[in-house]
Amino acid sequence: MTEKAIFYHAGCAVCVDAEQRFAAALDSSRYDVEVVDLGEAKDRIVEAERAGVTSVPAMVIGGGVYHINHGADLSALG
Amino acid sequence: MTEKAIFYHAGCAVCVDAEQRFAAALDSSRYDVEVVDLGEAKDRIVEAERAGVTSVPAMVIGGGVYHINHGADLSALG
Repeated sequence: MTEKAIFYHAGCAVCVDAEQRFAAALDSSRYDVEVVDLGEAKDRIVEAERAGVTSVPAMVIGGGVYHINHGADLSALG
Repeated sequence: MTEKAIFYHAGCAVCVDAEQRFAAALDSSRYDVEVVDLGEAKDRIVEAERAGVTSVPAMVIGGGVYHINHGADLSALG
């Protein structure tokens, strides 16, 4: 059974690098990784905020929020 | 063939959480993850600094540095 992981980004260079390096590095037999571009899917910004995301790129796994480096604040994407 | 990844931490709560959630989540068939506690292995602080690590927890993969959340500045560990 896989656990859901959501990788939020906004298309920035820092985001793309983290996505390629990190989201792609998770064990796909254990994690179902969804990649969400908040620059395009603005309707999901509220969902990300509720999960505790304050900046992108960020990964949400099992209720925990992991901000990986810093590309852009969520408030700049609204 | 596996790629080397080094997870630097300092035993803090933020570090332990990131280690359990992240370092353990990498695909072990593709990544050889070494976990380094800079609180104990102070002789490796210089190595971490040279790699670009400024705070822990952080992961170094393929020359890229990924600071995951923020536990402690490296300068506080010296």
